[in-house]
Parts: sequence; structure tokens; C-alpha cells
Amino acid sequence: MAKIDEIQKRLLEEVADLHDVPEGAYNLRANGQTAGRNTTANIDITSKDDGTGIDIHIKPGTKHESVHIPVVLSESGLTEVVYNDFYIGDDADVVIVAGCGISNCGQQDSRHDGIHRFYLGKNSKVKYVEKHYGEGDGNGKRIMNPGTEVYLEENSYMEMEMVQIKGVDSTNRNTKAELSAGAKLVIQERLMTHGAQEAVSGFVVNLNGDDSSANVISRAVARDDSRQTFLAEINGNSRCAGHSECDAIIMDHANISAIPKITANNTDAALIHEAAIGKIAGDQIIKLMTLGLSEAEAEAQIVNGFLK
Amino acid sequence: MAKIDEIQKRLLEEVADLHDVPEGAYNLRANGQTAGRNTTANIDITSKDDGTGIDIHIKPGTKHESVHIPVVLSESGLTEVVYNDFYIGDDADVVIVAGCGISNCGQQDSRHDGIHRFYLGKNSKVKYVEKHYGEGDGNGKRIMNPGTEVYLEENSYMEMEMVQIKGVDSTNRNTKAELSAGAKLVIQERLMTHGAQEAVSGFVVNLNGDDSSANVISRAVARDDSRQTFLAEINGNSRCAGHSECDAIIMDHANISAIPKITANNTDAALIHEAAIGKIAGDQIIKLMTLGLSEAEAEAQIVNGFLK
Repeated sequence: MAKIDEIQKRLLEEVADLHDVPEGAYNLRANGQTAGRNTTANIDITSKDDGTGIDIHIKPGTKHESVHIPVVLSESGLTEVVYNDFYIGDDADVVIVAGCGISNCGQQDSRHDGIHRFYLGKNSKVKYVEKHYGEGDGNGKRIMNPGTEVYLEENSYMEMEMVQIKGVDSTNRNTKAELSAGAKLVIQERLMTHGAQEAVSGFVVNLNGDDSSANVISRAVARDDSRQTFLAEINGNSRCAGHSECDAIIMDHANISAIPKITANNTDAALIHEAAIGKIAGDQIIKLMTLGLSEAEAEAQIVNGFLK
Repeated sequence: MAKIDEIQKRLLEEVADLHDVPEGAYNLRANGQTAGRNTTANIDITSKDDGTGIDIHIKPGTKHESVHIPVVLSESGLTEVVYNDFYIGDDADVVIVAGCGISNCGQQDSRHDGIHRFYLGKNSKVKYVEKHYGEGDGNGKRIMNPGTEVYLEENSYMEMEMVQIKGVDSTNRNTKAELSAGAKLVIQERLMTHGAQEAVSGFVVNLNGDDSSANVISRAVARDDSRQTFLAEINGNSRCAGHSECDAIIMDHANISAIPKITANNTDAALIHEAAIGKIAGDQIIKLMTLGLSEAEAEAQIVNGFLK
């Protein structure tokens, strides 16, 4: 893998499970520069003319291919906004892996704001995986504000796995989706905050077409003095089905708010929301402690299971 | 019953199930004037010095007594704001029935804004029933904006039944509660809107004391072109339990939003929210139609059962 150092390699493992150059199409961005790119017969990646990001074009009918677009920042004080647009052709079936890792051992804040737009053609299918990770012992903060927009044409399907497990000091996540007839969206978010971190995660899903459906599931753990706010808005504008769910574990002196909003603008919309916030049940911890774990180990095991 | 006419009598039946002067303490307000009052050895009712409403003092230890404070408006164009304060002594156990009926056959809007404050002493118990009803074929609107504040001292208990079934053109309901240790609050709201009505119902519940708990249950039906917004905010500031639930049936061209908010500011807070919006299931209607009901009759029966 060209032009990247050991720190960047470790970040890549964390955010994209990559030990080497990925198979298929990829675009690797390191410290604000393109550090590697590969295209295939079906998947083209081009830099935008104005240098603000990349366009990814996936041909209609492309099956079982993948695109990796990891970003790593190991330089303290770097701030960037990147726009990546994905055009997925009709009937395609692909996996897209994004992710951002920041290692900040310096004194200045490092910040990556990735704006991803997905245009799914008719009957296409996308599995999208996004992982955010931060590390470094400097005073500079690690900040990520991802913006995601998803446009689903007739009968397309998108599954999104969005994970932020560790080390991101501040994040303001915004995800917006517009669904046409028969389109289906499944979002699974897993978020853990610790220390003095702050996270805001907002979803707006518009079910515009008949028989469209969305399922937004968020699992969150807030530890130490961290603060989390979960916002999920589902608008039923057609004969549709929407479900959102937020399960959160609160620990130490953390603070969690869940603010869902469901609106039926059509009599044939069926919408459900559920949210629960609580601490780990005492009997769960005791059960694991009787098996020989310390209290801290028992808690860690339960949290890992919850976020898996 | 002195000083009230036939229209007002009918309104009283609708909002307070009263066919005659109630037992026990009562204060009847008709077209902006006191039309009758009775006090008992344990329950005193006095007009505020500034004329803005009444103070109700219930002695500590008062058991199995009731207070009725219905309001009726039969004059078109009347607008009033009334402040009623209830001081419930320690260990009391009472029933309080409020309610407002507006008959507006004129061209001008009639509006009653009742602000009720309840101060519950230690270990006291209150059952509160509030019904809102409107009628009349004029173009003047029937508007009610009730504001309710509840302050619950240690180990007190309040059960609130708040019903708005028919005829209120516009309502903005605000209910706020502060709970001390061991206090318990149960709210059951039932709301039906029809025609071009608008209703906003907001709850803010602060669980401040250890072992306090709240259960807010709302059942709503929106018909025709009516619009409803349900807002419920529960803040867990202690070792506490909070639950809110909104079940809504949407019909015709109506529009319903549910926006709950649960916030855990304490690790020992356990908070849950559930909301569901949907239309009446087709098989429920068909079942009743096979028993000989028309589609409209079947719908009415299901709606009545849902709001009962």
C-alpha cells in the first residue's frame, strides 16, 4: 500500500478491517491527499473538478463488487470537508465500505466532515458500512461530522451499518433518506461515547412512495461524563411502514436524550417508535461475576454484547 | 341549580356528568361569572383577591371528599383566562372534577384558558378528571388552552384523566409535573379531533426525587382534516422510572405527529417510550361488518372502544 505510514495502517485496520490493499475498487485518502485508487470495469472513481471529493459511478447490473473509500488523518490540526457522491446503476448489488480514522497526538483539533450522497437506481441493492475511530494522547480534539443523504428509487434497498465505537471527541451525525415506491431502508447504528465526548445523531426518513419502508435501529452506550442525543424523524407520506428504535445504556455520570418523531401524513402510513434508556441490570452483572469476572469485566462484556 | 339555563345544564352533563348540584364542595362558573359555590368543613373555596380565579384549600387528612369546578360558556365571543390553585393537605385522599363546555352558536370565537395548579402534600392522593366539550353551529370557534401544573411532595400520588372528545376547534394543552421522592403520577389522555380541528398536547414531567415514577398514556383519534401533535418529555433526574405511550388512530385526511423525548440525567433513571400511529385494521372492520354493522358503524364502534 503506497504512501501510507504505520499509524495510518493501524487506522485502516480499525475503520475498514484492511490489512492490505482491498480487493476491487478503492480510494484511499490520507492527510487530505489521495494515497491510492483502483477502479474496475464496472466501478469508476473520479476526482471532482473542483477538488472537493470524488464521484463513484457503478454501472447498472454490477453484482457482488465492492468499493472501499477509507480516510485516515494522522496529522494534528488538519480540517477537511469532503463530498463523495455515489451513483448506483439499476439492478446493481454492491458493498460500499467507508470509514474515518483520526490519530491526533498533537495540540490542535483534527476534523473530518464527510458528506456522502447515494443515488440508488431502480431495483439496486447496497450494503453500506461506515466506521469511525479516533486515537491519540494529544490535547487536540478528534472531530467527525458525517452527513449522509440517501435517495432510493423504486424497489431499491439499502442497508446501512454505522459504527462509532471509540475515540471521537465530538460528532454531529446527520442522515437523511428519501424513499420512492417499494424502496426499503435498514439502518443499524452503534454508538459508544466515553470521557467528555459529545455525540448528536439525527435521522430524517421520508417515506414518499407506496409500500416503502424503513427500520432505524440505534444502540448506544454512554460512559463517564459523555453526552448523547438521538433524534429520529420518520415521515409517512404514503402507504408505508416505518419503525424506529433506540436502546441506550447509561453508565457513570453520562447523559442521554432520545427524541424520536413520527408523523403520519397519509392515512395508510403505519409508524412505530420505541425507546428505552437504562443502566445495565444488576442481576446481569452478578451472573457474570459468579462466573469469575470482576465487576468491570462483567460490564465490559455486557456492553460489547449489546453493541455487537 | 341556580342561575343557569338549559344549554348550560346540557354542557354540565357533558363535562361533569352532573344532572343536579354536585355532592360536596363545588364552584360553578357560567359565562365568566360564579353561578354557584359550596364549601365543606374540610374543603374551602375562595375567590382570588384580584378576581382571576379561585383558591381551593383541602385540609390535611381529608378523605373521600370531592370538589367539582365545572365551567360553561354559552355566550358567543367570550374570552377568559382563569387561574385555579389547589392546595391539598398531607394525607388527604380526594377526587377533583374539572371540565369546560362551550356552546357557540354565534359568529365570534369563544375561548376559555384554564390554568390549574395542584400542590399535593406528603402522602396525599388525588384523582383528577377533566373533560372538554364543544358544540354549536355558528362560525365562531370554540377554543380551549388548558395549562396544568402539578407539584407532588414526598410519596404523594396523582391520577389524571384528561378527555377531549368532541367539538373543540383549537386546543393547546400543556401539562407540567414536578415529582419529589416516592411520588407517583399517572396520566391518561384521550383526544379525538374532527373537521378542521387542531390539537397540540404537551407534557413535561420531571422525576426529581428517588423512587418517583410517571406513566403518561395518550390515546388519540384524528378524523376528517384534523391535525394533532403529541409532545411528551420525561426527564429522569434521580433513581426513577418513567414510561410514556402514545397510540393514535388516523382516519380520512387527518395528520398526526408524536414527538416524545426521554432524557436520563441520572444513571439510575429507567425511561421508556412507545408510540404507534396507524389506521384501523381492515380485518377488525370486516369482523364487525359480518355481525351486521355498516362500515361507518363498525369504525365508530372501534373508535369508541379505543377511547373508552
